[in-house]
Amino acid sequence: MDLRRRINERRGEFLLFALTPPRQDASPARAREIADLTLERLRVLDLDGLVLYDIDDESDRNPDERPFPFLPTMDPADYLSRHLQDANVPAVVYRAVGKYEEAELRSWLGAQDPQRVLSVFVGATSSDKPVVTTLRRAQVLRAESAPDLLLGGVAIPERHRRTGEEHVRMLAKQAAGCSFFVTQVVYDVNAAKNLVSDYGYACRSRGDDPVPIVFTFSVCGSVKTLEFLQWLGVEVPRWIENELRHAEDTLGASYDLALATARELMTFCRRLEVPFGINVESVSNRRAEIEASVDLAARLQDELHR
Amino acid sequence: MDLRRRINERRGEFLLFALTPPRQDASPARAREIADLTLERLRVLDLDGLVLYDIDDESDRNPDERPFPFLPTMDPADYLSRHLQDANVPAVVYRAVGKYEEAELRSWLGAQDPQRVLSVFVGATSSDKPVVTTLRRAQVLRAESAPDLLLGGVAIPERHRRTGEEHVRMLAKQAAGCSFFVTQVVYDVNAAKNLVSDYGYACRSRGDDPVPIVFTFSVCGSVKTLEFLQWLGVEVPRWIENELRHAEDTLGASYDLALATARELMTFCRRLEVPFGINVESVSNRRAEIEASVDLAARLQDELHR
Repeated sequence: MDLRRRINERRGEFLLFALTPPRQDASPARAREIADLTLERLRVLDLDGLVLYDIDDESDRNPDERPFPFLPTMDPADYLSRHLQDANVPAVVYRAVGKYEEAELRSWLGAQDPQRVLSVFVGATSSDKPVVTTLRRAQVLRAESAPDLLLGGVAIPERHRRTGEEHVRMLAKQAAGCSFFVTQVVYDVNAAKNLVSDYGYACRSRGDDPVPIVFTFSVCGSVKTLEFLQWLGVEVPRWIENELRHAEDTLGASYDLALATARELMTFCRRLEVPFGINVESVSNRRAEIEASVDLAARLQDELHR
Repeated sequence: MDLRRRINERRGEFLLFALTPPRQDASPARAREIADLTLERLRVLDLDGLVLYDIDDESDRNPDERPFPFLPTMDPADYLSRHLQDANVPAVVYRAVGKYEEAELRSWLGAQDPQRVLSVFVGATSSDKPVVTTLRRAQVLRAESAPDLLLGGVAIPERHRRTGEEHVRMLAKQAAGCSFFVTQVVYDVNAAKNLVSDYGYACRSRGDDPVPIVFTFSVCGSVKTLEFLQWLGVEVPRWIENELRHAEDTLGASYDLALATARELMTFCRRLEVPFGINVESVSNRRAEIEASVDLAARLQDELHR
């Protein structure tokens, strides 16, 4: 069953793999090479879709020094249309909507084949940041120009920990057209369970079925990647941070931890009957970490009830 | 192997059961009846020790209405000496030291048989509360009057979540004579794991072995007991609160949750080689909850490596 139908039927148990587009200064030949290599690497997986991130300079959100330098990356929509046409699964294209003019966003939305493309809109990374198009406005544009294109929203367990209201935000996003959610990388399983629980019970109390929440997992091969995750806003529980910092094999330890976290969350969602998808990404572009991410996706794929 | 020796050798895997003494206005005959009934109930267990709480009116600590009224209870040391002489295991007697005059504390300490009695000193419940004897002073009295009597300290994962320094406090308490720790009731396994991890790594980095941490578990048979736990300062993760509030069988659900929490923590401590003990209490005095607590202790007893 395809991704679009699964989401429309509010069924989960699907597998995505997330990619960051190549650097903006990569030549077309190099970008194509990267795309081909990536698709080759992912061929071992039976994916339901790709996720393409829209990388924004988030230094406004976090005053701390970025552990990896910010390098502008290709627009994910361009990368998809130019270099990933050989992918035989749909793509969930992220759009940091604040970067785009309305007309540009509208024409892109209108040009997409809803069988091949889904989108996740991301709003401003901080309230101070000037935006060209607001998240609210982008949602309206999608409803007007591309009502059949499935729209996802971002769900952040860490924000729920602070506000206790992320599930209310999710319901508001659903009212604005979202039919699925994607989290950032999950290291704090308890925060994710709290959000799933509040969201699930809030849906039931309205007599409504929850929509799929896609949980993102990633390995971490070094203390530098760990610090980058934290810089990105991922809350890493203290005990996990300690294990990673003291591990002889950081990558192996993080693989085991990510697997355990994913399994716990999958069991929890099934019991609560909240549909979920799995998304795996490699936060770093080191080869060992990318390969371990593909291994993690393969392992989780075997545990999905598809 | 007895409790005292296990603690002295920094070995864990022991089982305690905690009791709240009868109401202060109970007649001696009634107190004896309660003691006999309790010992009869606990006979099915192979306990390594009892824990006797020293209940203090904590309304200064929490301005919210107490879900159960505060009723003064018998002094745990009196209850032990008068009515629990038939217990064939040592008792860990709590002392809310702020309530006692130095002379009284000193004479009690000097009169105890260290083979039969251990103690846990508890300091002021809030910094505003006037105390007769401070925790620091009580620790000195113990070192002077009863150096052989094993002293435990309170360890609070919830405080670690706020301060990130509970493990430093534990090391300071060890320097002041504590040779084991006891937590309040654990519902947030993640908070407990964070504390164990920070404490364990801090000990190793000093070239020292960690001392046993006794984790307390309890069932919860009603929303009122849940609210009482929260009033006492136990942080119940949102997802657990939701499960308990929506469960058809709250007691059964809380039993399963406590068992899962205890197992996760036991596995975690063994892997980190931090010795642990298990303490089970019934927060409420409803018969069904007491019986479920005894069942929980029996179940956990089977999983200890004694």
